[in-house]
Amino acid sequence: MNLEVQKCEACRSDSPQLTKDEADKLLESLVDWQIIEDSGVQKLIKSFSFKGFMNAMKFADNIAYISEKNGHHPQLIVDWGKTTVIWWTHKINGLHKNDFIMAAKTDTVLNATAK
Amino acid sequence: MNLEVQKCEACRSDSPQLTKDEADKLLESLVDWQIIEDSGVQKLIKSFSFKGFMNAMKFADNIAYISEKNGHHPQLIVDWGKTTVIWWTHKINGLHKNDFIMAAKTDTVLNATAK
Repeated sequence: MNLEVQKCEACRSDSPQLTKDEADKLLESLVDWQIIEDSGVQKLIKSFSFKGFMNAMKFADNIAYISEKNGHHPQLIVDWGKTTVIWWTHKINGLHKNDFIMAAKTDTVLNATAK
Repeated sequence: MNLEVQKCEACRSDSPQLTKDEADKLLESLVDWQIIEDSGVQKLIKSFSFKGFMNAMKFADNIAYISEKNGHHPQLIVDWGKTTVIWWTHKINGLHKNDFIMAAKTDTVLNATAK
């Protein structure tokens, strides 16, 4: 089943982080997302380009909306002409399948947002 | 005249950056803002706490609105329970009085935003 139509599962602090192989395999399903390490925490990151500030903001708003709906929230960085979306799971200090599901949903939201 | 009621002036790429003394003096008018250096560029930064993600997002939206109105845009970082606002002037790669005016306006917007 495609990631973007899957639902986030409940994640507890003792849920296991994905192994490197599991993360790499999930990453293959995504377009242009990257795994970065930030102060020892693995995160999933992608930047999206827009015309001006308000279109970048509007996209961030749309991502906020789906994150609230799915009970899983990213870090959103809005600059003039650019929104960066970063997913990771605070509870496990790393990557969970939920982050890949939300990354896939992020890409589908892009099509609904003015560039 | 208080910073928050002043208007941003047109800024050109050959407009001078503030001197350290000028920046320090303007910083004294602000509450809890800090000057940081990020890859050689001086920036004005402050984080604001909120309840949950959507209140942090709502504050970011309000800052986006005043930034569009004033023709000067920040970097906004939205996390669960926190919005970080960063002002600097791309055209001069550093701090301009406009950044301090917008920082002061940012604080006034806070009072209109649910925490």
